[in-house]
Amino acid sequence: MRIALLGGTGDIGQGLALRWAYDTDHEVIIGSRDPEKARTKAEEYETELDSRGREVTVKGFENAMAADRADVVVLAVPPYHVGDTVDAVADKLDSETVLVSPAVGMKGDEDGMHYHAPSAGSVTALAARAAPDDVPVVGAFHNLSADRLANLDVELDLDTLLVGDDPDAKDTVSQLAAAIEGLRALDAGPIANASEVESVTPLVINIARHNDGMHDVGVKFQ
Amino acid sequence: MRIALLGGTGDIGQGLALRWAYDTDHEVIIGSRDPEKARTKAEEYETELDSRGREVTVKGFENAMAADRADVVVLAVPPYHVGDTVDAVADKLDSETVLVSPAVGMKGDEDGMHYHAPSAGSVTALAARAAPDDVPVVGAFHNLSADRLANLDVELDLDTLLVGDDPDAKDTVSQLAAAIEGLRALDAGPIANASEVESVTPLVINIARHNDGMHDVGVKFQ
Repeated sequence: MRIALLGGTGDIGQGLALRWAYDTDHEVIIGSRDPEKARTKAEEYETELDSRGREVTVKGFENAMAADRADVVVLAVPPYHVGDTVDAVADKLDSETVLVSPAVGMKGDEDGMHYHAPSAGSVTALAARAAPDDVPVVGAFHNLSADRLANLDVELDLDTLLVGDDPDAKDTVSQLAAAIEGLRALDAGPIANASEVESVTPLVINIARHNDGMHDVGVKFQ
Repeated sequence: MRIALLGGTGDIGQGLALRWAYDTDHEVIIGSRDPEKARTKAEEYETELDSRGREVTVKGFENAMAADRADVVVLAVPPYHVGDTVDAVADKLDSETVLVSPAVGMKGDEDGMHYHAPSAGSVTALAARAAPDDVPVVGAFHNLSADRLANLDVELDLDTLLVGDDPDAKDTVSQLAAAIEGLRALDAGPIANASEVESVTPLVINIARHNDGMHDVGVKFQ
């Protein structure tokens, strides 16, 4: 399968790119608004993987070209760029493409991080509204520490929660998630349930801040 | 220490009462608006504990009398009764009493359960507003399955998240939580961070519904 990480030069994109390239045989494509940046980062990831004995090709493209080549397109961009990014790649998507939304709206103050949903109710819902009607959207990978994901020396032993209204698309993303070593995919229901999933992200940041030794903490349901 | 569980005849109250009475030497008091119901339930808990070789006294009182006797008062009532319950016991509380809020506002529809915060921002904040100014409030025990808590045959191996603005009160509740076997207390910061903690409750209900074998699921941060 071909996975395009739009905003794949950023922190969560880097982590997912490295994990998929290292743990699976899926083809990873890095997307960016700046194709040169995408290529540079893709080469960096190749070098990092090669240093670990994993010889794979990671290519970099401008976002729309990356999306055009992919079966699964991950919107690894900040929440305020999700709408624009979907618009920029919309005509490269079709009913066979699965769009994945990992972004979370947050606001920080002196007390901590707080969940800040867009007017659509969640970033996943925002992505679903922005996407062409026939393109299935799945929310996933919200609550993973980017640093922990990007450090291949660290065993994850974590869950990621999936929300989506299209069972086949959710199943595809579930399999991609579970293909990452130490990551378990759980179903949290339809996109209407996304805000409770997304709001775990500020929560884990607050827990990391207030408890010794819990840097880069993630979540497990048991 | 004396712990009063107001609404201790209900499901989360029962679970906490049984766990504290079984696992610790703290004195557990059951409160209810109906003192007769409180006494009947307290006797049921005593019988249950006795059947497991734990001979302890559990007393039942009307809520205000229960609160009057306690060092820690747990508002184990539905979210829409939190304000009334605090009002009913307010003159029995003082700066030495710690008020604990485990309730969560939720609304269910065909998609699942959704977090529904009161206008105060969270039920914990609502409890803090309702409480006399000098009475410290700590949010805790929100995300625990009542059935799992009440079944002493089940090992918990779970976390509970604490929010509070008074470090000493939070420390007291943290120790009470950690005294329950298999329960770890984590600090999620001040009461301003309560909504992210409370919204894990609808999330775990949605996860239980959508994943086989995850009935009564709880959460662990790692």
